[in-house]
Amino acid sequence: MSTWQELAAEKKRRQTASIPKEWLITRPAEDVLDVTDVPTSCGLLSARELEITAVSEVVILLNKLGTGEWSSVEVTTAFCKRAILAHQLTNCLTEIFIDRALERAAWLDEQLKSTGKVVGPLHGLPVSLKDQISIKGLETIMGYVSWIGKVAERNASLTEILIECGAVLYVRTNVPQTLMWPETYNMVFGRTVNPVNRTLTSGGSSGGEGALLRMKGSILGIGSDIGGSIRIPAAMCGIYGFRPSYHRIPYEGSANSLEGQDSLPSVLGPLSTDLGGIKLFMQAVIGRKPWLKDPLSPRKHWNEDEYRLVEHGGGKKLTFGILWNDGLVIPQPPVIRALEMTKEAVIAAGHDVIDWKPNKHAEIYKATTDIWGAAGEEDYAAVTSLTGEPILKSMSSVGTSAGTSEVGVYITDTSISAFELFQVQKRRAALRKEYLDYWQSTKAVTSTGRPVDAIISPVAPFPPPQHGKNNSAEYTFIWNALDYPACVFPVTKVDPVLDQPKSAHQFLSEADQRVYEMYDSPETFKNAPVGLQLVGQSQEDEAVIAMTEIVDVALKAKLHGRPGL
Amino acid sequence: MSTWQELAAEKKRRQTASIPKEWLITRPAEDVLDVTDVPTSCGLLSARELEITAVSEVVILLNKLGTGEWSSVEVTTAFCKRAILAHQLTNCLTEIFIDRALERAAWLDEQLKSTGKVVGPLHGLPVSLKDQISIKGLETIMGYVSWIGKVAERNASLTEILIECGAVLYVRTNVPQTLMWPETYNMVFGRTVNPVNRTLTSGGSSGGEGALLRMKGSILGIGSDIGGSIRIPAAMCGIYGFRPSYHRIPYEGSANSLEGQDSLPSVLGPLSTDLGGIKLFMQAVIGRKPWLKDPLSPRKHWNEDEYRLVEHGGGKKLTFGILWNDGLVIPQPPVIRALEMTKEAVIAAGHDVIDWKPNKHAEIYKATTDIWGAAGEEDYAAVTSLTGEPILKSMSSVGTSAGTSEVGVYITDTSISAFELFQVQKRRAALRKEYLDYWQSTKAVTSTGRPVDAIISPVAPFPPPQHGKNNSAEYTFIWNALDYPACVFPVTKVDPVLDQPKSAHQFLSEADQRVYEMYDSPETFKNAPVGLQLVGQSQEDEAVIAMTEIVDVALKAKLHGRPGL
Repeated sequence: MSTWQELAAEKKRRQTASIPKEWLITRPAEDVLDVTDVPTSCGLLSARELEITAVSEVVILLNKLGTGEWSSVEVTTAFCKRAILAHQLTNCLTEIFIDRALERAAWLDEQLKSTGKVVGPLHGLPVSLKDQISIKGLETIMGYVSWIGKVAERNASLTEILIECGAVLYVRTNVPQTLMWPETYNMVFGRTVNPVNRTLTSGGSSGGEGALLRMKGSILGIGSDIGGSIRIPAAMCGIYGFRPSYHRIPYEGSANSLEGQDSLPSVLGPLSTDLGGIKLFMQAVIGRKPWLKDPLSPRKHWNEDEYRLVEHGGGKKLTFGILWNDGLVIPQPPVIRALEMTKEAVIAAGHDVIDWKPNKHAEIYKATTDIWGAAGEEDYAAVTSLTGEPILKSMSSVGTSAGTSEVGVYITDTSISAFELFQVQKRRAALRKEYLDYWQSTKAVTSTGRPVDAIISPVAPFPPPQHGKNNSAEYTFIWNALDYPACVFPVTKVDPVLDQPKSAHQFLSEADQRVYEMYDSPETFKNAPVGLQLVGQSQEDEAVIAMTEIVDVALKAKLHGRPGL
Repeated sequence: MSTWQELAAEKKRRQTASIPKEWLITRPAEDVLDVTDVPTSCGLLSARELEITAVSEVVILLNKLGTGEWSSVEVTTAFCKRAILAHQLTNCLTEIFIDRALERAAWLDEQLKSTGKVVGPLHGLPVSLKDQISIKGLETIMGYVSWIGKVAERNASLTEILIECGAVLYVRTNVPQTLMWPETYNMVFGRTVNPVNRTLTSGGSSGGEGALLRMKGSILGIGSDIGGSIRIPAAMCGIYGFRPSYHRIPYEGSANSLEGQDSLPSVLGPLSTDLGGIKLFMQAVIGRKPWLKDPLSPRKHWNEDEYRLVEHGGGKKLTFGILWNDGLVIPQPPVIRALEMTKEAVIAAGHDVIDWKPNKHAEIYKATTDIWGAAGEEDYAAVTSLTGEPILKSMSSVGTSAGTSEVGVYITDTSISAFELFQVQKRRAALRKEYLDYWQSTKAVTSTGRPVDAIISPVAPFPPPQHGKNNSAEYTFIWNALDYPACVFPVTKVDPVLDQPKSAHQFLSEADQRVYEMYDSPETFKNAPVGLQLVGQSQEDEAVIAMTEIVDVALKAKLHGRPGL
């Protein structure tokens, strides 16, 4: 029997072997921090391949594929090449299956040629998947050495649907061991880094997706989010990411941590460089009636009325509540500036803004981590014990020269009884009710007679931290606990001149002091992306996407020379 | 400090005092088994009051109330009187609040008079509530001595909605201690009996509703159902009862057992002597957007397309799967006959019928009882320990001369850890997926190209048993575990000539033998109601109601002189 180190090394060798030799480049030196321009400068991609992968909207790509102007084979080839480049620069991939993808693309081209019709709404579109979403015949390793060799016997429900929609699957992307981290590191595939600055994290747990998309090695990727795992990488890589409501996108058949924890579940959802891609994905998947595959999926069609904001005055004059801070941790200057920019933009577009006061966030945080921690390490240990790989207690302690802070850990070693769990869940249910009533009560302070239409909130109290230092998911997991859909949009990037550290304030908590002290040198984070999230009420998926479009347009209109992707 | 016996006796005295003296009757002797005719014969109700309470359709009552032909005060008075009569005959009530009800009715009459408009879609309609659904200022005792004196500080979400809809609340109805029984007995209010035969159970846990409705002391009542608690009393009392999907009707603010058990939750739903009342209730409540009050309620409007059976070929030619037995317990002869009658009726109406083979029912039963039992007695003991009242282990052991069988207990004394619970819930999720695929696969055997449209299933393997002998909820809780909506409709009543005991078969299980042996003397069950349930796929609430209407019409068309209510 091999040691876990040997197993990991052997898998890594197999991964390397799956990369076409002719696509290997001479990697830039480690001190080249921003690698986002390498694809255009390194000469590997043809002009046409650069044109294809630089397309800014998913719908444009789909149109060119649907008319046959671009074949699926050439589009797939272009994204495969760019994904392999991205991987060499950021270590973002796990499974790489280019041959399969090209075979599939050729079949799609043949279908279009012979029938004159597209196979489905995503015909020919390359879609990247987080390393949880099972594909028949491929390993689903999910950051565990112990799952090396675990080959899926069938496709996940979402995989089935994407195939029915005509998508081309080509790569899966890296995650942290256990998934319960806002960074991306494991002992099989190592660490994924931020393409904008490789000393910074790409976020997690869908950090492989974040890095790949930012490199334009993908235009639409699928992540998962139990506490921010879609939104944190989206914000930290400067792209869009959407956390749908529980079960709206079918999870059935995908691998996961904490399976059977039914009360506060992880969800699957899209990340994209294009907000239109978020909507397109949601419409395409829901259009396939996921409830016919996943018994937990709500029997609810895409609701065009909700997307048209019928219950939000048609979107003509919205009231946004801005969460400047959660009462416990004051965001760093770039995040505050992003909130101010967004406030100005939506006011300029004719909307109202009020301050959103946090309501019992600390109690909700406690209930959430109590639920996540109810089984202690038992779930993770059941996997890691198969090979003896350790359960990571830090994202910084292994294989990295970054700091050694032991923070951000949502893995505890104490477990509770089923009855104790019920008491936590009961407490959390009461908090959900309180928050709902609180939100509804805001109709007294708006000018529209409606409650606040959406909250605009930080995604994290900071831009992407250095590896091992991402110590907070509270600004995202609050909305998971409440099951509020939330969409991340990019706003700006760190500007050391505009974003000078502020003088110390009376700290609200230990975490507040830690976050304050992290920002001692703005140069460390220069040009790092800053995104925010727009949060709707429970199950307002369609409305959240529509309102994010409104905010995004307002930002683009307001900002001349907006620091973009 | 009083003993629990003293507390119970004092509450019972207060209950008796809440009944107007002039409405007390000389009770029939205990050996008068069928008391359903007492209201028409005893002389307490006027001809007009008998006419009002005999109305067969909720919509007719609402029309007369809405036009002012009948005032809300006189309708409320009639139902209050008849409810008090029902209570004296079957012991079906807990809280009785006639003064409040009449005050409310007078206000509604005044509103109608002054505005010319009804307050809401249930204007003036008396609605009875199971003793869980909190009403501000009243005790919610739920069968626990320990909850005597527990006065609700606010209305449950459903109570609020009913009031907004214009309903008149007037009584609450009896339940078994813990709610986890298919009979109705507790140490505060005692036992509720079946109006058709008082030696038989009215079912449970919404057995107070079942008895009250069958006595026509209510035309629309609200129960709850975690494993059959709406459907069992509905079938055993010969009325309609609907178990909606999880959270479709808001539970928020109502009392419950096992609060915080989020995976396999109880639901609220209607019971009625009129199938139209079921639909009306669902439409009225959903029309009030319960998701604005209960954070768990799905954001899904009443879907008229689903009610019109758009995805079921418009209901023109349906395929019903008949579950003759679950592979473990063969139903008694009256239940088999009800299935045969229904089969003939729907075939005569132009529909198809196939046999529905059970798929892993035993495994689903095990997962369900493991989830229910995860906290052992801890949840119940947390309540009973307040006064020292015992946790009932049988419905027959206390205060009854009926048999002493110690069966049907879904209360165990072993508890498990949160991690072990997650493993059960994971197993159960896999079973839900298997059942979904199994159901979808039936499209291969129908003539319509669609999967089977609905299952027609026993509600219990027997007509109402004698007190203490209702030992099985498996035929109902299978659908809770799968979250399939299910609607009970009355079919027939036990006929000792037609329903002769069959000779013994090779027993499929111990329970099968027990159920077989219970039916040694058909005379014991003479005229006892037999109902069945129609079961749809997950969240097909609207379609299940529509298909039940089709079956109900078919039965009424087929049967001349159908043994009715």
